[in-house]
Amino acid sequence: MEKKNLHSSSVTVADVARHANVSKSTAARVLGGYGVTSEKVRERVQASAKALKYRPNELARSMTTGKSKTIGVVVGDIENSFFGIAVRSITDVANAHGFNVILANSDENFDVEREAVNVLVGKQVDGLIVTPASRYEIGHLENLKSENCKVVLFDREIPSLDMDTVVSDDQEAAAAVTKQLLDAGHCRLAFVTATEEKDSDADGALHIPTSSVGRRIEGFLTACNEGGIAREDSLIVLNSDPKAGLGVSISKMLDQPNRPTAILASDSHVALEIFKQAQERNIEMPSQLSLIAFHNADWTEVTRPAITVVDQPVAQMGRWSAEQLIKRIEGCTEPALRHVMKMKVINRQSVVPPA
Amino acid sequence: MEKKNLHSSSVTVADVARHANVSKSTAARVLGGYGVTSEKVRERVQASAKALKYRPNELARSMTTGKSKTIGVVVGDIENSFFGIAVRSITDVANAHGFNVILANSDENFDVEREAVNVLVGKQVDGLIVTPASRYEIGHLENLKSENCKVVLFDREIPSLDMDTVVSDDQEAAAAVTKQLLDAGHCRLAFVTATEEKDSDADGALHIPTSSVGRRIEGFLTACNEGGIAREDSLIVLNSDPKAGLGVSISKMLDQPNRPTAILASDSHVALEIFKQAQERNIEMPSQLSLIAFHNADWTEVTRPAITVVDQPVAQMGRWSAEQLIKRIEGCTEPALRHVMKMKVINRQSVVPPA
Repeated sequence: MEKKNLHSSSVTVADVARHANVSKSTAARVLGGYGVTSEKVRERVQASAKALKYRPNELARSMTTGKSKTIGVVVGDIENSFFGIAVRSITDVANAHGFNVILANSDENFDVEREAVNVLVGKQVDGLIVTPASRYEIGHLENLKSENCKVVLFDREIPSLDMDTVVSDDQEAAAAVTKQLLDAGHCRLAFVTATEEKDSDADGALHIPTSSVGRRIEGFLTACNEGGIAREDSLIVLNSDPKAGLGVSISKMLDQPNRPTAILASDSHVALEIFKQAQERNIEMPSQLSLIAFHNADWTEVTRPAITVVDQPVAQMGRWSAEQLIKRIEGCTEPALRHVMKMKVINRQSVVPPA
Repeated sequence: MEKKNLHSSSVTVADVARHANVSKSTAARVLGGYGVTSEKVRERVQASAKALKYRPNELARSMTTGKSKTIGVVVGDIENSFFGIAVRSITDVANAHGFNVILANSDENFDVEREAVNVLVGKQVDGLIVTPASRYEIGHLENLKSENCKVVLFDREIPSLDMDTVVSDDQEAAAAVTKQLLDAGHCRLAFVTATEEKDSDADGALHIPTSSVGRRIEGFLTACNEGGIAREDSLIVLNSDPKAGLGVSISKMLDQPNRPTAILASDSHVALEIFKQAQERNIEMPSQLSLIAFHNADWTEVTRPAITVVDQPVAQMGRWSAEQLIKRIEGCTEPALRHVMKMKVINRQSVVPPA
């Protein structure tokens, strides 16, 4: 137990107190940011802390105050700009309330997510914002609940958990844009997502682990059904070859003799892959293929055709999740909220009647 | 001092030891992952830990072993896919060596960066990978060095610090693509970056805080100079209105009567904004405007024209930085390395002779 962590400062509160010529409890109050001291004393202690290069021991502080003033965020895929925007808005709110944000990436894998949650909790965060990779593998989140750790679920819900949650109106928006494709005259449609095929059985939607994707598929299928489209003409294209990537599934879909005339892409990465492969095959868009994508990624307006998108209010969702989490950390005990934010369709040039 | 952090588990190593019917030191060895125990005992202790929902106290573990098995990464801009790719490759290497990764975003602001470094060090990371927002404001990094915290600088160098650093050949690559534009016949060129104007004086390059951008500008200006281009025809366009965004500077550049015929964009966000604004103004690309961008962002190959890019080996840089950091954490004391990785030009359709 002699060996000290390399980074824990060797300068203690007692050292700072001695240097500033105040009592240890006074120095602790100033350095911990709690209790009352005169401005003069505060300045002296802070100057001493600076001179001695005092670095607060986070755990010691959190043991005293019960707060580490840190929020942990577990995102699904750090390479997806959707999460970049979310993290930025969460950070803005957190900073405005004096909280810092640390992040971890789950890579949409629930084993990694569980580990990430454990690491962040081990780092004494005051609360967590999590985009759960799976609505079925939720033991680690149940544990947090039973430990009274504050959690807000972001973009994906787990009804059985009764936790604060912010989502978009995935099912309704998917149904609405599917109807838009049907109204344009399409009768062979596909919904494409990077979700792995193994997670699903033949009839699709029910076993999709990502709740937002699952609900979009439900909306798509409901609208197809109501529009009188045969089940075999409302394709659900999943990632059949996770190692090779979604490209393989998209190739298969585009190369089949009776390929879809309209596609709904579950996110902007999926849409970009479809766009690339259509170009490679000289499939003229939109005349030979209509496309609508979820997420108003920045590049979607510069392609020709520019792509019609379902714009999720990502930044607002991020802000709401941070505000709600901070309310909880500060003691709010009202029942868990489920906040649903409406998406908006931005019509561009990628939807026309089938040839 | 009575108040306990809400998330610190109330289950201790002693509780697990009692439940598993082993000594406390045996339980500590198993739970801490060090020393030798029989497989049977290890399984029993792990089963007890699971049954009791034991959650290791990170700090306690790091006090014992001197290691938290966590790496902190401070990225410049979480919304930029460049950093997304870097984080993914860093994480892959870290996980393969049994390390977890936690992240913070500096938003390219060195005050935020300093705070982020302090937070991560307070969370007892074993080492840090940092993309320093400024090569001038480096006090916080000097402190780390004096505290013997392991650090690798990513993508940006600070020669005075003598720290392990991985960068690309920014100056050489910028000079090469500038020469490519000159060889195509352009004689009015611009280098565009989101770096704020306040950080620079009239003669440009010398006060750019981001070292990679500074070195690219040096390469651009050197090539222009060697190509006999007058200083007023080798524009450096910076962000003149940080609140409104870079768009304002780009508008001004494109709306001037004698606008550049070729542009080198410092990153893919900049390139996308140029592309959008050129479209809005019906500036035909490439015939009326040639463009080369740093970073092979995924969308650059689907635009028409597809964009010629300078491809940075981001993933390899990320891997190198993680491997080097882990070597340091594991005790390597060889002198600091400066590792320079070569970039590669991917020629597409966005460069032609001027009209």
